[in-house]
Amino acid sequence: MIVGELINSSRKAVRPLMEARDAEKIVALAKAQAEVGAAYIDVNCGAFVGTEKEVMEWAVNSIQAELSVPLCLDSPDPEVLAAGLALAKCGQPMINSLSAEEGRFAAVLPLVQKYQAKVIALCMDDTGLPETAADRLRVADWLIEHLTGAGVPLADIYLDPLVKPVGTADAAGRELLDGIRLIKEKYPQANLICGLSNISYGLPARKVLNRVFMVQTMAMGMEHHILDPLDKTMMGFVYAGQALLGRDPYCGKYLKAYRKGIYE
Amino acid sequence: MIVGELINSSRKAVRPLMEARDAEKIVALAKAQAEVGAAYIDVNCGAFVGTEKEVMEWAVNSIQAELSVPLCLDSPDPEVLAAGLALAKCGQPMINSLSAEEGRFAAVLPLVQKYQAKVIALCMDDTGLPETAADRLRVADWLIEHLTGAGVPLADIYLDPLVKPVGTADAAGRELLDGIRLIKEKYPQANLICGLSNISYGLPARKVLNRVFMVQTMAMGMEHHILDPLDKTMMGFVYAGQALLGRDPYCGKYLKAYRKGIYE
Repeated sequence: MIVGELINSSRKAVRPLMEARDAEKIVALAKAQAEVGAAYIDVNCGAFVGTEKEVMEWAVNSIQAELSVPLCLDSPDPEVLAAGLALAKCGQPMINSLSAEEGRFAAVLPLVQKYQAKVIALCMDDTGLPETAADRLRVADWLIEHLTGAGVPLADIYLDPLVKPVGTADAAGRELLDGIRLIKEKYPQANLICGLSNISYGLPARKVLNRVFMVQTMAMGMEHHILDPLDKTMMGFVYAGQALLGRDPYCGKYLKAYRKGIYE
Repeated sequence: MIVGELINSSRKAVRPLMEARDAEKIVALAKAQAEVGAAYIDVNCGAFVGTEKEVMEWAVNSIQAELSVPLCLDSPDPEVLAAGLALAKCGQPMINSLSAEEGRFAAVLPLVQKYQAKVIALCMDDTGLPETAADRLRVADWLIEHLTGAGVPLADIYLDPLVKPVGTADAAGRELLDGIRLIKEKYPQANLICGLSNISYGLPARKVLNRVFMVQTMAMGMEHHILDPLDKTMMGFVYAGQALLGRDPYCGKYLKAYRKGIYE
């Protein structure tokens, strides 16, 4: 499953559109992502300090007025999430994100319950960001225990093992990949998801690193990614990767993507 | 480690060069591959039925007259291997290949011993090609037992789990990747190697499939590949993949490749 990441106020191309309340272009960006296979459209308005909630409400209403695609409401602020969720009306909404930090978990869990939402659960707690694969498994244990204990179905939990830059620590990629393996060995039914771009922070040719890392995480058992679905090369690797992992009967989706010109 | 695959008589561009005994162009092809990082240069003259041995001798002598790069002598015929090995004088030669087929094993093992060569050991026996990951592990068990039992150091054995087309069996890629994992779990010190192009046989956009599969096999623990080192995109993925797997201190090789323009 792909979550389309493009409607993000931290992107230079998007912030002015939100500032100008340009509904047409925001809707077009949502539509373009949905058309190439994004199952969820992420909406992040975090760059608007003080008005994030209003921008989120405007964005959710604008997209839903034209499109019936489920949204992934993306904010560290529970109030902003609550405002977006109150308006989200297409399919099962997704929350991006909670974590095992005590305050954040307590504030976001009621929203997951109230809206029966899918939730991205970051593998970090009050001790900070995870370093090793074992750190990630330990926090995943806690998250699964406390979320399912609070009635959230395992199928609605999307664990994010948190990608860190390989440019600042040689083992950053390796520990994340091993973390995926450890979590999938213990919880074969758990969903895993991540964003990719942190891995290449500070290095050149970032797109190559992001794409290769996507293929690696998928090979280790991660089924979901937050990415730019308009990146044809990236999406071509998604289809190729799925076929090579035996998840595409008769290479049907791969061949369909080929016929649509994705590999040109 | 990369074995450069380009000097192969089954390639349309190469056969006429061998036919014409064009030493200059064959040497140039060896040199070009060595310059971009091939540790071994594969030499395959199998298309010359009846004269394969002479062509092999000519090719080995021609390359070695100009270059000091170790060769990977590639033939199903033990006599051709023996002829090439008798001439190979640069570094430790590599034999491509033996298998667990009774006749082939018995015929090639003495050459491995006599020349203290590295050897590519195909995970197939007289029951045929492997289907599952477990098939591959079973034949790998046999090969490691019988090769090390005959005095061949584990470090000189390069197990090839045999890539089969995903276009004819959905599980072909998955079973190979699981086979790598099973073999590495049991023999962490074993070397694994494969050629890639069989995976995409019969499908379109083969280069994409080959490259993505290279990344997947590397993520599962395979350290060596037989490939075209002049494919800049492929080599770019090798460097990116190594950095992401924590095998490239300070991303040094990745950055060097970037500065050389590999990602342009």
